[in-house]
Amino acid sequence: MTFDWITFVWITKAARPSGRKHHWMRWFLCWAWLASVLALPAQAQLLVKKQRFDMPAFTTQSGVTLPISVGWEAYGTLNATKSNVVLVTHYFSGTSHAAGKYAPTDTQAGYWDAIIGPGKAIDTNIFYVISSDTLANLNAYDPQVITTGPASLNPKTGKPYGLDFPVVTITDFVEVQKALLDSLGIHKLHAVIGPSMGSFQALEWASRYPERVERVAAVIGTGAMDAWTAMRLERWAYPIKADPAWQQGDYYGKRQQPSAGLAVALAYVTQDALHPSGFNQKYAGLSQDVRAHQDIRHDLGVWEQLLASAQSRSQRMDANSLLYLVRASQLWRAGMGDNWQAALAKIRANTLFLPAEGDLLLTPAMANQSYQQLTTANRQYHLLKALSHSMGHLDGIVHIQDAAAQIQRWLHSDAPSLAPANR
Amino acid sequence: MTFDWITFVWITKAARPSGRKHHWMRWFLCWAWLASVLALPAQAQLLVKKQRFDMPAFTTQSGVTLPISVGWEAYGTLNATKSNVVLVTHYFSGTSHAAGKYAPTDTQAGYWDAIIGPGKAIDTNIFYVISSDTLANLNAYDPQVITTGPASLNPKTGKPYGLDFPVVTITDFVEVQKALLDSLGIHKLHAVIGPSMGSFQALEWASRYPERVERVAAVIGTGAMDAWTAMRLERWAYPIKADPAWQQGDYYGKRQQPSAGLAVALAYVTQDALHPSGFNQKYAGLSQDVRAHQDIRHDLGVWEQLLASAQSRSQRMDANSLLYLVRASQLWRAGMGDNWQAALAKIRANTLFLPAEGDLLLTPAMANQSYQQLTTANRQYHLLKALSHSMGHLDGIVHIQDAAAQIQRWLHSDAPSLAPANR
Repeated sequence: MTFDWITFVWITKAARPSGRKHHWMRWFLCWAWLASVLALPAQAQLLVKKQRFDMPAFTTQSGVTLPISVGWEAYGTLNATKSNVVLVTHYFSGTSHAAGKYAPTDTQAGYWDAIIGPGKAIDTNIFYVISSDTLANLNAYDPQVITTGPASLNPKTGKPYGLDFPVVTITDFVEVQKALLDSLGIHKLHAVIGPSMGSFQALEWASRYPERVERVAAVIGTGAMDAWTAMRLERWAYPIKADPAWQQGDYYGKRQQPSAGLAVALAYVTQDALHPSGFNQKYAGLSQDVRAHQDIRHDLGVWEQLLASAQSRSQRMDANSLLYLVRASQLWRAGMGDNWQAALAKIRANTLFLPAEGDLLLTPAMANQSYQQLTTANRQYHLLKALSHSMGHLDGIVHIQDAAAQIQRWLHSDAPSLAPANR
Repeated sequence: MTFDWITFVWITKAARPSGRKHHWMRWFLCWAWLASVLALPAQAQLLVKKQRFDMPAFTTQSGVTLPISVGWEAYGTLNATKSNVVLVTHYFSGTSHAAGKYAPTDTQAGYWDAIIGPGKAIDTNIFYVISSDTLANLNAYDPQVITTGPASLNPKTGKPYGLDFPVVTITDFVEVQKALLDSLGIHKLHAVIGPSMGSFQALEWASRYPERVERVAAVIGTGAMDAWTAMRLERWAYPIKADPAWQQGDYYGKRQQPSAGLAVALAYVTQDALHPSGFNQKYAGLSQDVRAHQDIRHDLGVWEQLLASAQSRSQRMDANSLLYLVRASQLWRAGMGDNWQAALAKIRANTLFLPAEGDLLLTPAMANQSYQQLTTANRQYHLLKALSHSMGHLDGIVHIQDAAAQIQRWLHSDAPSLAPANR
């Protein structure tokens, strides 16, 4: 509604200078605006509810069997043939809250609310959109997140797992989603789409279950991690491991919590997800740093700002979970074997790559490399477009609206012919 | 001589296919090659000696007066009018060892040996090339480095300064160099050139003493630090500060030394100075990381390699000094005031910017921004060229040979008309 209010204010202001003579015009525009708003009940706020999915025995790729639970949300209505499902897979610090609000009073909607909802690019009047929390979700203490991770109770000991929690992978995330969809009787996906770490899951879905996935979109993503990016992620883990309060991951229920290390880690994530141009706009210059010039013990003002912001955002996050998501991302390559190129070549879905031009974290070059692999393997249905704003990697979240038309076209494109689902 | 051997091999191989008929040609080329080598005694190995410069009372920009000493080296011969001086300013982890060897048996020559020496781009048969160690030099324990920094003895306490050492700036480095040159009776520079942090010093020279500097070259450099880059440097400092053995900088002479934190910092410097393409070539892929998949406590192989390499390279480095160089770099803006653009506009020297195309640390965009500032201020003598190899920022050191011809042209270009030196 924000946009409509802006339009309204603009109309009334714009009409003013013309004075009394065109008084009728002002009223005409106002009524036209009101009529358009009233005629768009489909654009009304989406209200969503978190649901829960339990598996008494899930076996990870690393060979550990354990009970798991994840939260999930859905927007729209599942049709009779269960053929209108769009799976949305979330990013590193994200959750299943992709769109809508839990209550009309919520200050923020889900992260991709700009493109998911009635009448939007991923139209919930047409599609049944579903999203679930990953294992080891970073926001473990968010009351709207349900996840099994290092902060969860180990049934064998009755205490939180800590680092005894098994390493989990992108494939594990996909297998949990598949079990959830199976439980709902959904065996084919009209589409799967996700940003960043969500793109890994989307591509793994399309590669692992090519007969189930008709369309796949990798937003700010790649089909495989490289050594460079894996090392940048390692640097997110370091401040946590270096925090003495981390206590080798065994901090649950203790007085000392690794919140300082976690905040530093999150500050690094924030910087790495931004392009310098967006970052420099946001953070003031350095010229006021007189104290930092007078004493080496004083921090730069920019660092203080960045850290304060990270501290407030990390309140509901779990430090160990960040380590697990770093590892899951570091180990990512399609098919999780020695040949990610061959795994990507299995994809039969109509594929859309949407890198962000200024992305320094998962660069357009990485998306392009994956894209080339697909076009080599399969001559049709592979599109590569780029978002171009000033925020770098973050453009894939905050400026996704720029790609709304592309996403809509991809969603309504012809489905490739897939073999009947056999699982 | 490497190049000459390659030429020799090429000549003999190239002559081969023509067979016996052109046997004379092979021998002719070989003799021609031998003659050219013998005719080039000027290309012989440059042997250099470290010298020492002492100032009993140097006052830093931050207002502290203290005795300082720095090491310096010179290559070539100072002419009678002292008008053939080229000052070379070193990078973050560098020293005054820009060219030559201390002994013929040294395995490595100075970092820019490819372009400094008899017959090379910066021809020591023509120029007197001089370079000095900065204050707070990172390689404080290298026997060939003389520097005053946090590891030096504070004459007031008889103990190492630690964090009581004053914050030092790029301008302080320039002022020490100026005092050294004054002591040698040198009052005009044919040119000043430096890579990375060395470019800051070079530009500060040309801005602060425009009447003394005829030519300035900023290699992989910028006229001002931005918030983004300052925060990336902050991340180099963090592992040191997070190391409990650092003890708030008061570790000198103690059993616990912050060598672990220092090695991590250096590993970060290494990654940030490289472009992903060069980095990924150097470090093996991730597919062998079975242990990292089996247990979160295991590190990735790439990280182990990167860290081991950093550990061995950090043996002669001082952790606190890294913090001081980070701060000096963070605070960098031409003129060290609130208007770096105006400070750059004071430059009258013939200016060469040499960014590296794949530089993600001090990006070509930053060099271009500084360059634009100069071209706005002064219509002549400003050139911008780019190095384009696969190593990113590091191209400015290891592939400087690519720019040898440009540097040579810049060095032999007309000098702008400068007012007589009045200091």
